[in-house]
Amino acid sequence: MSTLVVGSVALDTVQTPFGRAEEALGGTAVYFSLAAALFGDVRMVGVVGDDFPAEAIALLEQRGIDLGGLQRRPGETFRWVGAYGDDMNTAHTLDTQLNVFETFHPTLPPHYRDARLVFLGNIDPELQLDVLEQMDAPAFTALDTMNFWIDLKKDALLDVIRRVDAVLINEGELRQLTGQYNVLSAAGRVQELGPRHVVVKRGEYGALMFSGDDVAHVPAYPTYHVRDTTGAGDSFAGGFLGYLDSCSSHQLDDLRAALVYGTVMASFTVEDFSISGLRRATPESLCERYARLAEITRIVIPEVEPDLVPEGV
Amino acid sequence: MSTLVVGSVALDTVQTPFGRAEEALGGTAVYFSLAAALFGDVRMVGVVGDDFPAEAIALLEQRGIDLGGLQRRPGETFRWVGAYGDDMNTAHTLDTQLNVFETFHPTLPPHYRDARLVFLGNIDPELQLDVLEQMDAPAFTALDTMNFWIDLKKDALLDVIRRVDAVLINEGELRQLTGQYNVLSAAGRVQELGPRHVVVKRGEYGALMFSGDDVAHVPAYPTYHVRDTTGAGDSFAGGFLGYLDSCSSHQLDDLRAALVYGTVMASFTVEDFSISGLRRATPESLCERYARLAEITRIVIPEVEPDLVPEGV
Repeated sequence: MSTLVVGSVALDTVQTPFGRAEEALGGTAVYFSLAAALFGDVRMVGVVGDDFPAEAIALLEQRGIDLGGLQRRPGETFRWVGAYGDDMNTAHTLDTQLNVFETFHPTLPPHYRDARLVFLGNIDPELQLDVLEQMDAPAFTALDTMNFWIDLKKDALLDVIRRVDAVLINEGELRQLTGQYNVLSAAGRVQELGPRHVVVKRGEYGALMFSGDDVAHVPAYPTYHVRDTTGAGDSFAGGFLGYLDSCSSHQLDDLRAALVYGTVMASFTVEDFSISGLRRATPESLCERYARLAEITRIVIPEVEPDLVPEGV
Repeated sequence: MSTLVVGSVALDTVQTPFGRAEEALGGTAVYFSLAAALFGDVRMVGVVGDDFPAEAIALLEQRGIDLGGLQRRPGETFRWVGAYGDDMNTAHTLDTQLNVFETFHPTLPPHYRDARLVFLGNIDPELQLDVLEQMDAPAFTALDTMNFWIDLKKDALLDVIRRVDAVLINEGELRQLTGQYNVLSAAGRVQELGPRHVVVKRGEYGALMFSGDDVAHVPAYPTYHVRDTTGAGDSFAGGFLGYLDSCSSHQLDDLRAALVYGTVMASFTVEDFSISGLRRATPESLCERYARLAEITRIVIPEVEPDLVPEGV
């Protein structure tokens, strides 16, 4: 079993009320891969410049991530500079230097094409489609996107949305994409396009999943010290698809468990800058947090139902 | 068993993207009482002017609500004028006319004093304390408050917080009260003052409850048509305390069930203007929504745990 991811590989400079990271390892493909690699084989598609640190490559290889599709080009690696205030749900972008990412064109090595699951990270939807078309017949495909592509390449984005099984998207971007404020209506609009599953990421408020007619909700894992939320959504996607790749089927209960694993992965990432929090995730701590979320959300049906006044209110 | 509530009784004029209500029945004591009355006896403390509609009195009496503590004074009833944009989590106050509420001083009829539960709605904390001191020995006490009192009467507010079992508060006001942005840290600060239970109301993102060391979360009930969120928090409190009043004990599972009943009550209120949505709640629909929330939040522990890579990520 294996999961393919295409997305940014970045050096991030991030300022939050709790500290600062300078040119630290980041990007969708990195967070996703590190999270998904806990569950099985991951194949990365992306691009870095000739300044990309050898230690970062060594770390990814050590985690068993296949870098056969990670292009190394002359020039500088993609850089993102961002800041957060107290509200860590929203990043403020201060600078973006696309560098080698600007002319990135994903070409899949032949041995990548039979990957069972595919995650199309937040890149140009035309490139997302291009990756999808190079695949043999993946069992499950998902994508993420952002405001930039909704504004500039909405038609291409809608084309690729029509072809995936799942859309993982921030609440604000879901509203922007659909023009619907109500999250149920908005998710319904996306499902009408084709995807059976819509996962709405709501930062510290958790995640909602619409799967066919089913609605599932998982709150964020309770965390006292949220230091940097960069990569939380990508780690979430890595946990979500990584777990699904470990499942023989993709039934509703599998998707619901994936939603919890995604939530748990994100909770490690937000505890520290760059990938430091995520690297501290162990199989034991994952299972502990999974069980804790089950306890927090457990709804007790009262043994004795209240004697309700029949006229109603 | 019985629950006492003190709070505003109002005529609200509300504009939302989905319509408008003019001088419609509202106020904390009204929403709370109608919700709590489904579970048992409710005793209302408040004040209205001589313009308060006779039909409103008749409705409250018909629901079995004890109005022995509802003062009728010469002058006009409290009026609130507010508006909401697409984000129905936040009301914009356009006008407040305190009228008879300005000189309100709650005096409890003797037969009110043995009420088993007490809810101190969002009024001057000095009056909240005054009500508490008129009570015999309630089994469970709770309060709500708002930005105005946090700004103007923080010391009195802290005094009354120290004396109640539970604080039910909006997330933004919890942050303002404690100076802590992180919701876990903020709730912990309130618990340090005395209350064992802190219930954080997060609008469409549901509610978090901290009870001693326990953390519980219930998402908002999924609602396609949210027309007016006025009174949602007060209906929530009415469902929460009303259910607790029907319980012989107030153990953790009782509080968790109360959190669900509060959530369900709020979901009826937001479906229509004024008390129209809440009035449509029936015992059957309450139980249905309770069960639906249990299904939405059900976390499945996988039968076969994933074979996690032991080195971690």
